[in-house]
Amino acid sequence: MAISQISLPKTVGLLGGGQLARMLAHSAQRMGLNVKVLSSNPLDPAAQVVQDWTQDNLESSKSISDFCHSCDLVTVESEFLDLSDIKGLDAKIFPSPKTLGLLRDRKTQKSWLDKMKIPTAPWRSLDKAEDLDTFILKEGLPVVCKKRTHGYDGYGTFILKTKKEVEKFKLESFQPIFFIAEKWIPFQKELAIMIARSKNTSFGWLPLVESFQENSRCTWVKGPLRSSESEKMIRKLSRFLSALNYIGIMGVEFFKTKDGLMVNEIAPRVHNSGHYSMDTPGPSQFDLHWFCGLGLPIKGHHPQGVGFAMVNLLGQESKKIQLPISGDGFVHWYGKQKNNLNRKMGHLNTLERSGSLALKRALQITKRGKY
Amino acid sequence: MAISQISLPKTVGLLGGGQLARMLAHSAQRMGLNVKVLSSNPLDPAAQVVQDWTQDNLESSKSISDFCHSCDLVTVESEFLDLSDIKGLDAKIFPSPKTLGLLRDRKTQKSWLDKMKIPTAPWRSLDKAEDLDTFILKEGLPVVCKKRTHGYDGYGTFILKTKKEVEKFKLESFQPIFFIAEKWIPFQKELAIMIARSKNTSFGWLPLVESFQENSRCTWVKGPLRSSESEKMIRKLSRFLSALNYIGIMGVEFFKTKDGLMVNEIAPRVHNSGHYSMDTPGPSQFDLHWFCGLGLPIKGHHPQGVGFAMVNLLGQESKKIQLPISGDGFVHWYGKQKNNLNRKMGHLNTLERSGSLALKRALQITKRGKY
Repeated sequence: MAISQISLPKTVGLLGGGQLARMLAHSAQRMGLNVKVLSSNPLDPAAQVVQDWTQDNLESSKSISDFCHSCDLVTVESEFLDLSDIKGLDAKIFPSPKTLGLLRDRKTQKSWLDKMKIPTAPWRSLDKAEDLDTFILKEGLPVVCKKRTHGYDGYGTFILKTKKEVEKFKLESFQPIFFIAEKWIPFQKELAIMIARSKNTSFGWLPLVESFQENSRCTWVKGPLRSSESEKMIRKLSRFLSALNYIGIMGVEFFKTKDGLMVNEIAPRVHNSGHYSMDTPGPSQFDLHWFCGLGLPIKGHHPQGVGFAMVNLLGQESKKIQLPISGDGFVHWYGKQKNNLNRKMGHLNTLERSGSLALKRALQITKRGKY
Repeated sequence: MAISQISLPKTVGLLGGGQLARMLAHSAQRMGLNVKVLSSNPLDPAAQVVQDWTQDNLESSKSISDFCHSCDLVTVESEFLDLSDIKGLDAKIFPSPKTLGLLRDRKTQKSWLDKMKIPTAPWRSLDKAEDLDTFILKEGLPVVCKKRTHGYDGYGTFILKTKKEVEKFKLESFQPIFFIAEKWIPFQKELAIMIARSKNTSFGWLPLVESFQENSRCTWVKGPLRSSESEKMIRKLSRFLSALNYIGIMGVEFFKTKDGLMVNEIAPRVHNSGHYSMDTPGPSQFDLHWFCGLGLPIKGHHPQGVGFAMVNLLGQESKKIQLPISGDGFVHWYGKQKNNLNRKMGHLNTLERSGSLALKRALQITKRGKY
């Protein structure tokens, strides 16, 4: 691969100050880019790691617009940031506000996956109350009702196994238009992949991994996996990214079923299931994301002879956060000040000969550590 | 190795704002430590990557002392920072001001190496003008005159090959007391190693590497090297670190001669010859340095099946700095605003099956890149 050149100093901006922005900031700083962050609280994880921090409201189009004007290139850490009122800045923001708009909404996301013939769970939009009954009549129970936007870590997702649960959901949580219904998929495993498309139209990806969720929240990731289906899926996803003119990295979560891989959902940004890449040889997901926005050539990466695992370090509501540091594992803490129960406070990466060995050690380390 | 726990948030301070401080800051932030920087210019490489930056004079004992009081733990990026007037802060600063004082001065550094029976070039201190003549009479020419302090990248080092050069040096540069003289060593190669000692008294090290200098300035590093002598040397150096009660990582440069390894000089801090460790599996030199100050257990690291290389990206006085970014190599830019000739602006790390292959690719990339 040829190397590319851009001029320095280039100012890049991050809309949002959470851990994803923090890790994106570190990656960009490593490349010598000048990083700015827009967020509301000086204690935000990303605010702590830049000199040039702007305190402002992410709900105001004016502050976002002003911020973007002061940067050469801007990206987001959340697809739920509404950029629909931001005009004339599409060339600076990646992925583009338009593409983010399509993918943030599960209805348009699923429609696009269908259109590109990428297998997903059967679904329908719930435009009126009866649509749920019609869907259940057709597909049976269990059914999964998901909020169209702002769902994450299981929030906004309702798995309904019995008629009684359906009635309860209808009474307490359901609002037509705001939900879609999906057939519940009896999966064997959950898998994930990070796939990216650069402004220069080249594609890149990181290896297929297994991810394990408890209560719809990611507990661990291990890899790399070899799967005969992954190459075919990467080709399909590449066409999907091209069709959307998507620029940046994307996290894609799969169900592995007896009939093959099925896309569960898509996150149009850097993603928890790619955090392992900070410590495997080769570019991290954060590096790849910037390469995309900068228009640099990218390619697929599959670490040779290295197995890896990532375990999330979740808040435990103890008064003090204890920090496990091991010379064998790589602990990343996000600098969060409040140690709320089950909040993502950091993660631990390990490397071993295989993903299973790496996971075994990571779980040993986190078990011993009080954090 | 057992994992250890410390409480968060812990505030760590960096005295100085150059690239070594910048990379130390990133390492500490990754661990979730709250990082403060004291430096004079907001455009300093490390100033750009922290929220909590103090602009003050590093030559004032009062500003250093005030800064240290606001931190839990402090380290330096240069051994030439004079901390002799800083009182009562030895428990916070690592390596301790006393140890730094001994190692910054080539005279006391060489005396300690002699005392610990670590082979170095024959030398003597030059307390009066005639001492140089006496030394040359005994050891012959060439002779190397080195300033006792503040020498780096060849500055303050004079290689005198002829009587004429000796006379010129005496007339133009020599001042007794401020110099030592060393016998010139006809070496085969230059090697280097990073060795560390934690506050908990455990030792750690990174693999032996070859380093190549042009005009006394490091051009590239490759490794890992296997050497029958390295284990013996690590044991000797460990005893040296213990004797000095040294806390932190140390760069040790060697001459490889027909008679074995000989220490050329020591840098009591993170060092250019260890920058490759940012992209090899395992902790970086910056991580290890913090582990030492935090009192965490450390150990030796030798990457298995991975060859690596590092090439310095030096300033070229072109108006614009061009940034080569390759998905295959890892470019680290330090965010320096002025592209002076031969100034260290960044470095490129590569990984391959062997150090030689990694170096070959790194040199290909940097040759193609205008930066």
